[in-house]
Amino acid sequence: MHIEQITLQRTPVGLPDASDFAFGHAELPQPEDGQVLVRVLALSLDPYLRSAMAGRHLSASIGIGDLVRGEGLVEVLASRHPAMAAGEQWVAACGWRSHALLDAAAVAQARRVPAWLDRPTLALGGLGMPGLTAWAGLNRLADARAGDTLVVSAASGPVGATVGQLAKIKGCRVIGIAGGPEKCAWVTGVAGFDACIDYRAEDLRQALDRLCPQGVDVYFDNVGGDTLLALLERLALGARVVLCGLMAQYNGAAPTAINPALLIRARATMRGLVVYDHWDALEQMLTEMKAHYLAGRLQFREDIAEGLQSAPAAFVRLMQGRNQGKALVRL
Amino acid sequence: MHIEQITLQRTPVGLPDASDFAFGHAELPQPEDGQVLVRVLALSLDPYLRSAMAGRHLSASIGIGDLVRGEGLVEVLASRHPAMAAGEQWVAACGWRSHALLDAAAVAQARRVPAWLDRPTLALGGLGMPGLTAWAGLNRLADARAGDTLVVSAASGPVGATVGQLAKIKGCRVIGIAGGPEKCAWVTGVAGFDACIDYRAEDLRQALDRLCPQGVDVYFDNVGGDTLLALLERLALGARVVLCGLMAQYNGAAPTAINPALLIRARATMRGLVVYDHWDALEQMLTEMKAHYLAGRLQFREDIAEGLQSAPAAFVRLMQGRNQGKALVRL
Repeated sequence: MHIEQITLQRTPVGLPDASDFAFGHAELPQPEDGQVLVRVLALSLDPYLRSAMAGRHLSASIGIGDLVRGEGLVEVLASRHPAMAAGEQWVAACGWRSHALLDAAAVAQARRVPAWLDRPTLALGGLGMPGLTAWAGLNRLADARAGDTLVVSAASGPVGATVGQLAKIKGCRVIGIAGGPEKCAWVTGVAGFDACIDYRAEDLRQALDRLCPQGVDVYFDNVGGDTLLALLERLALGARVVLCGLMAQYNGAAPTAINPALLIRARATMRGLVVYDHWDALEQMLTEMKAHYLAGRLQFREDIAEGLQSAPAAFVRLMQGRNQGKALVRL
Repeated sequence: MHIEQITLQRTPVGLPDASDFAFGHAELPQPEDGQVLVRVLALSLDPYLRSAMAGRHLSASIGIGDLVRGEGLVEVLASRHPAMAAGEQWVAACGWRSHALLDAAAVAQARRVPAWLDRPTLALGGLGMPGLTAWAGLNRLADARAGDTLVVSAASGPVGATVGQLAKIKGCRVIGIAGGPEKCAWVTGVAGFDACIDYRAEDLRQALDRLCPQGVDVYFDNVGGDTLLALLERLALGARVVLCGLMAQYNGAAPTAINPALLIRARATMRGLVVYDHWDALEQMLTEMKAHYLAGRLQFREDIAEGLQSAPAAFVRLMQGRNQGKALVRL
């Protein structure tokens, strides 16, 4: 069977470029016992892939000539595994290609798209891994409570937007940080945050001082870099900081340099979050978020590129922070 | 009344020098209502005073011409406050002087030396504020458990030695870090740690790799600097890091620069400790530690200089790390 695929052509230096990737074709054999043939309906583009391309991520590296990894929304075409049946929709580690053969390990890690989900691509975003990231960070690591002032960066992204909306439901005062007026307008106007700082348009430190005069109780960090440093200078006593992503250094910038004296001064707790540790909470997360979503209390935004060949350019836009919501490629 | 005192003559630059201080005399009035006149028996020398002299500490700054602050073991000479009676021994904020007039606020913060304590100066060390620091960090922040590999820096100091001994009692495997063979010999031979790394004699990273092949579950940091960075590179999954002191930067070195990616990789929790938050636990700490101390399970070491005039030189030795145990000045 002839399929389309995208491989890594060159290890990106700094910001990735579409020419770092190559579009091509491959043969895909028919499924053997324990395997499942799927068609990819949509690909999820995630910043961690940039680290994997640099060999710096916890997950396996993506080397030159390798199929670009990544999860997608898939439809089962032919199954020789008892867990999946033709016609079903799943989220699976398919990679950047039109069709994939899932082996038993990939089937074991795949997640069925919930039947109640009217937009199946949300299983790649706010109701999928990014949603679980937000839920676990907020509930298991940040101990966010009603009345807390919570700040979240990359606020219009699938993790940030979910963090902020769940925190609002908990009764927190929620301030987002995002780049550009369009993102900020969505964060306050649609996602319902109390405020959103456009760090490209105003001085972040001044804006934080104005919006958080009592300091910050919870900072959910998706970016690292100078944004993290600015927040550490403004922690309230007993603050909690969740380290979730380091967008500022994924493209190769020098590591963020935290001064531990700031954590001592605030008696702060800083914790590193890796979503892989929290799959056990997926059902609990979905149960809670289903209720909020169906009641209209959770809004999700998607930035959808069309066609597999658009994936490299869409990934570059994501790493430039130019996406508006969860970055997807529809095939 | 004529008393002896030491004032700050010059704000130290880098390592303090004895000439930064001035010995002199002052008049002390008789106590009025609500005040207590005390004689100072012993002064506690603590690294945080260096930060206070630089105006960088949470507590009030020590400016040029000011009496050097600090706690001491005092004996009540004359009291016009109902809480204190002549002849009693207390730990109080007396400053570097032979006698002090405590006002109501100082009386309220003072702590009576426990009657069972055969060495009253221990109320300035392992059974006082440094002991409470160790107890609170270990029990409230680090969540140290039997079987954990715990590393503590400044291991022969009053905080570090207490941390390690309490952790041994809990069933942890305890590795100390200290400078010089004499300190290390005391840490393993008397305080009973499993090992002690002499960071001046061997490469810290190699020693940690040898002694902690499975990584470090708890790191109790009293120093910051490169020692902290070396430990962050070696955290086990789910590790806890307690930030208690930053000896490496008290003398003015550049702030330690932590890379947050290390915390994410280890899913670590890092928390800032300030002992002032934990005075509510003093009685509980003393109850527990009294039992261990009287049973011979806790060893404390004191480094005692003689006479008020020796305080500046003793403080310089402390800030050079040349003290052997809790730094005190006996008057």
